[in-house]
Amino acid sequence: MTRGCFITLEGGEGAGKTTLARGLARHLAGHGHAVLRTREPGGAPGAEALRALLLTPGLDWDPVAEAMLMFASRREHWIKTIHPALEAGAWVICDRFFDSTLAYQCAGRGLDQGIWRALRDLSLPGIAPDATLILDVDPGLGMARAMRRSGPDRFEQLDGTFHRRVRDAFLEIARREPGRCVVLDAARAEQDILSDALLALRRTLGAPP
Amino acid sequence: MTRGCFITLEGGEGAGKTTLARGLARHLAGHGHAVLRTREPGGAPGAEALRALLLTPGLDWDPVAEAMLMFASRREHWIKTIHPALEAGAWVICDRFFDSTLAYQCAGRGLDQGIWRALRDLSLPGIAPDATLILDVDPGLGMARAMRRSGPDRFEQLDGTFHRRVRDAFLEIARREPGRCVVLDAARAEQDILSDALLALRRTLGAPP
Repeated sequence: MTRGCFITLEGGEGAGKTTLARGLARHLAGHGHAVLRTREPGGAPGAEALRALLLTPGLDWDPVAEAMLMFASRREHWIKTIHPALEAGAWVICDRFFDSTLAYQCAGRGLDQGIWRALRDLSLPGIAPDATLILDVDPGLGMARAMRRSGPDRFEQLDGTFHRRVRDAFLEIARREPGRCVVLDAARAEQDILSDALLALRRTLGAPP
Repeated sequence: MTRGCFITLEGGEGAGKTTLARGLARHLAGHGHAVLRTREPGGAPGAEALRALLLTPGLDWDPVAEAMLMFASRREHWIKTIHPALEAGAWVICDRFFDSTLAYQCAGRGLDQGIWRALRDLSLPGIAPDATLILDVDPGLGMARAMRRSGPDRFEQLDGTFHRRVRDAFLEIARREPGRCVVLDAARAEQDILSDALLALRRTLGAPP
């Protein structure tokens, strides 16, 4: 049994991660691969319980405690869901992974990067996605798309500079890890993004997906 | 305003921590101190929510994820409850703190001590109790006491060697940190343990409690 590939999709709100995940899963399944689509936070029973806790209004988590919960949730997700699927030969497509914590909590909200790194190394020693597709889009366009989908409430508390910091953080991750990360222009049409993604995966993974 | 003192009570099941906490709080209040009694896991809204999650049957936490949740909970407890009370001049008496995770998760269940240390340093940098009273009792006697209180169910899954490892771990902590920790013989009568505890606190804190 060949181990599957672990692909993560990253990017700001409204960048089109869900649409791309669906397109990739359809393509991979059409080529005979077993595919698991999953997303963070969540993806395993304990991780889903933590997701609910992180989203509970009024608990007002301290930023370091919040990051600890995110990485505890991620470890559960990896151990209970992602790793077994990969070992069973499935390709795993995961909507957000540790890069999102670096972009949103560190670049967006000021959490120390050293804490992010320490928690990552503790909870996921030596573990990283085989390929990460970063969907890059102007925050204004992404937010307009996301608001069409879910209304303005989610965003009214966060200003534009926050979303620009998040975008810049994703681009910086891609610059630092060109072997794992590929930036895709997410302002383009759905089908074009999927084609770019498949091409990028062939190059990054050294194998046809 | 003088900062209060942070006292933790540690020890195995049935060692008498609750009784001693009550006696200490009564003594301190009788001497004009503001006193906060609290316990772990829990002691703050987010920490209580995590306590419930840690005790939810069937989630079957990975040991590292479980330790991350314990220290996230502990950080919330420190930031939201313990630290503000100390700053306001109250004495804080806390039933279990980070030594319990070292004794139960590391010595008892095999969690790596390096992970415990890394999580402690991340979540509580430079923070430790001013004094820790370790109630030491033969595990057989402690378990008999605890079973009288809450029935045998809680213990039937854990064998005697587990409780001996936990006891030895608490004694080892006391050996390593004699400036913070005092071991009290918890097989004695309630009033004798309280007298010993007050004497130990006077010596450890260099001030009459």
